[in-house]
Amino acid sequence: MKSLAEKIPEGFTTKELSRIARKKDAFIVAGLAEREGENFYNSAILVGPEGFIGRYRKVHLFNEEKFWFTPGNLEFPVFNIEIARLGIMICFDWIFPEATRILALKGAELICHPANLILPFCQKAMVTRSIENRIICITANRTGIERRGTQKELKFTGASQIVNTEGQILLRLSQEETIGTVNVDPASSRNKHLTDHNDLFIDRRPELYSLLTHQPSSLNGA
Amino acid sequence: MKSLAEKIPEGFTTKELSRIARKKDAFIVAGLAEREGENFYNSAILVGPEGFIGRYRKVHLFNEEKFWFTPGNLEFPVFNIEIARLGIMICFDWIFPEATRILALKGAELICHPANLILPFCQKAMVTRSIENRIICITANRTGIERRGTQKELKFTGASQIVNTEGQILLRLSQEETIGTVNVDPASSRNKHLTDHNDLFIDRRPELYSLLTHQPSSLNGA
Repeated sequence: MKSLAEKIPEGFTTKELSRIARKKDAFIVAGLAEREGENFYNSAILVGPEGFIGRYRKVHLFNEEKFWFTPGNLEFPVFNIEIARLGIMICFDWIFPEATRILALKGAELICHPANLILPFCQKAMVTRSIENRIICITANRTGIERRGTQKELKFTGASQIVNTEGQILLRLSQEETIGTVNVDPASSRNKHLTDHNDLFIDRRPELYSLLTHQPSSLNGA
Repeated sequence: MKSLAEKIPEGFTTKELSRIARKKDAFIVAGLAEREGENFYNSAILVGPEGFIGRYRKVHLFNEEKFWFTPGNLEFPVFNIEIARLGIMICFDWIFPEATRILALKGAELICHPANLILPFCQKAMVTRSIENRIICITANRTGIERRGTQKELKFTGASQIVNTEGQILLRLSQEETIGTVNVDPASSRNKHLTDHNDLFIDRRPELYSLLTHQPSSLNGA
């Protein structure tokens, strides 16, 4: 891990992606292993034409990641890049509805979701994430197979996708394809109206949700 | 509304369903309009061989229901009926991940979800609800068409379904079918393990979820 993880933003990958973003006049979200002091994080960076903008550190670690990474400690930042307010999730964060919900409540219009998925559920679930939050969700998933030393072979599910605020899949790649583009309107995510009388955010009943922020005692050490 | 809503458990429907539950040695969850004093609720009752057990009052009202009903004020009760710990949601509650999550955190193994759905999203989303909470979700949806007075015609989507803790659809009816049965094991919902190192409930980070219980000020009166 020490040999692969990089400092952000001083490391090679952040610098190189910043260079490309400047050249292409584009914004890029990409995952990498981050080193900070003695800690390693499963992180994603956001860079743009002006360089490094910010990072997210994966909050919910998957399986053996727990041996290597420290869980994210930066909460769920939302970045205003003028063309959109952008939130980041990483891979397994998808299974926790709290992650997307908090990003959306903070004003994220667009979720950028880099992933190395090996389970088959996420792509369908991200449609639910879009519908329940009325936001645009972009899952960029790894393809191919990883074989490393004596470890179990990992086959990634590909099928990267872009879903609009109404849960329509605007783009879904095959298991092998790696690049796809589609135009979206981030401003569409600002409208939380589902029916004449339902605004999905105003209709929430936070006064009834207190259990969500308390780990039930029955789970402690279970 | 006054002529249709009933008191619970004194009203006709609760008594009649209790009689059937006793006769069939079964538990029944069913929706009805409830009257309590001057208030009306979109409610569901749970009855069993021993009679009336409890009620749930829909927390998240859909569209024009807001003209007629008071939002549910009983939080999200979970009923231990020996063969299962059972939670109830009603129709539009499905779009709020908080509802299912809270029931599951309270120990619900089985969600009984009576619905009069007219939008096409719920059945797929309930698969996500099962996966993210590792619980069994039973959506019993209305079929057919409602024409009442000068109101817009309502076409219900049917397709009632039962999903297991791994998101497998054990049963899905057609748009017209009204009855289906399948055996499930409620105890399977007690195991929240997804991988060797992931327990979906222990892996939650409630200390990072505080925004879920506070309506962002930007939404007040929006």
